[in-house]
Amino acid sequence: MKLTPEELAHFETEGWLFLPERFDREEIGLLRREADAVYAQERQEVWREKSGVARTAFAAHTFNEAYRRLGRHPRLVEPVQQLLDGPVYMHQFKINAKAAFDGEVWQWHQDYGTWKRDDDMPEPRAMNIALFLDEVTAVNGPLFIVPKSHKAGTLEAGHDLETTSYPLWTLDRATVKRLADAGGIVAPQGPAGSVLMFHSNIVHASPPNISPWPRTIVYLSLCHVDNHIRQFKRADWIAHRDFTPIEPLSDDSLRELARESVATQAAE
Amino acid sequence: MKLTPEELAHFETEGWLFLPERFDREEIGLLRREADAVYAQERQEVWREKSGVARTAFAAHTFNEAYRRLGRHPRLVEPVQQLLDGPVYMHQFKINAKAAFDGEVWQWHQDYGTWKRDDDMPEPRAMNIALFLDEVTAVNGPLFIVPKSHKAGTLEAGHDLETTSYPLWTLDRATVKRLADAGGIVAPQGPAGSVLMFHSNIVHASPPNISPWPRTIVYLSLCHVDNHIRQFKRADWIAHRDFTPIEPLSDDSLRELARESVATQAAE
Repeated sequence: MKLTPEELAHFETEGWLFLPERFDREEIGLLRREADAVYAQERQEVWREKSGVARTAFAAHTFNEAYRRLGRHPRLVEPVQQLLDGPVYMHQFKINAKAAFDGEVWQWHQDYGTWKRDDDMPEPRAMNIALFLDEVTAVNGPLFIVPKSHKAGTLEAGHDLETTSYPLWTLDRATVKRLADAGGIVAPQGPAGSVLMFHSNIVHASPPNISPWPRTIVYLSLCHVDNHIRQFKRADWIAHRDFTPIEPLSDDSLRELARESVATQAAE
Repeated sequence: MKLTPEELAHFETEGWLFLPERFDREEIGLLRREADAVYAQERQEVWREKSGVARTAFAAHTFNEAYRRLGRHPRLVEPVQQLLDGPVYMHQFKINAKAAFDGEVWQWHQDYGTWKRDDDMPEPRAMNIALFLDEVTAVNGPLFIVPKSHKAGTLEAGHDLETTSYPLWTLDRATVKRLADAGGIVAPQGPAGSVLMFHSNIVHASPPNISPWPRTIVYLSLCHVDNHIRQFKRADWIAHRDFTPIEPLSDDSLRELARESVATQAAE
């Protein structure tokens, strides 16, 4: 899966790129079931909302076979290698739940702001590629992205320890308004299996999910290996310290596991 | 402005109807300015979010000339007279702010649930017609509507006195999920000046507005005069006690005021 020149140009100008339906029903079915299994575990990698439902699960690629394969999937890793122009390692891996009714806000922020301040990542040569495990619509807490904001550099931010269970370096309102008045705000929507890429300096947020349906998205935060973090303040399952270049698996690695899993269930 | 047979059929089946761009730029400009003037007043009709910004202003048609004219505007009153099949009076009038960054949730509810329980309105022969004063998009807290839920009758509800500053009879999660799984959820979006009608038993909600832009909507809750409320527990500026049939003004009544207002400003 190589990005086209048009897609590369869109990313360069706008700072984000939406690729609808890149994973099929079998693959998503497997990941959806495994996400529920991950959330059901009581372990330090699984963070919960104030209500107790899962908010996010870190590092599932280190303890779950389906997510191990997803973390090395060529449809996710190769476009990022292409954009970052070289080998990448996994800086962070999370499955964000945004649970039905209870999923809370992610305030306006830039990811690189956190990676710089908390992890001393030298440059914004890192980015997110996200996979929708549920259909994302206007009603279940879609991601809000401020196009072109990746050109604004790394902005001043305050450390929000109060709004939700997860600490985040968040932007002030005047900055968000200025950038949104200039670039607008998009809310990419599409079926499960769609992929969303965005620059590590893009300004983004997501509202609470008040709908009766979940909105699960997996985020791979991939970093050029030369640009690895220098500071190890956060747990190694939040900000990884294994800078080995990812070797992508074959394109059908996840589909094969899905078929084995279905065959096993049928045999039981 | 008469509804077409197709529009009437859509309302009957779905319980809601969206009419894009029924009011023009001059009219909306006037109402937008006057809304800010209303919110700036310290009076009992203006309710505030926990942050202090305005959440809603009641009964502005009783103390503001632009809203007096809007409350008798034929483009809003006549379609409701048509659907309710007879003369109507103003049961409630509010300008909901859903302020930039601070606008809070309205939980899942039916309006008639409140009108029945609090005001003893005999039947759901009443409905809302809403006018967008700002463009409504996926990002600034659009209204979420469960199509066909108006056929479910008046559902069990609990009195929510805690989530926001405004007490509301809200539905339980299992009920919302059951109806949304059957009918889906729509989030009508469109430019300022658009009109949204919905049945008094339709299940609806709206999420917080985390965007840097306001989302102001005026709601006229009109009731058939024969169906007036029987119980006067709530303040008369929340649930009105004047059951006189509304006589619509001329179609250009609001536009005339907008022009006078602009001429006055230019002369100053």
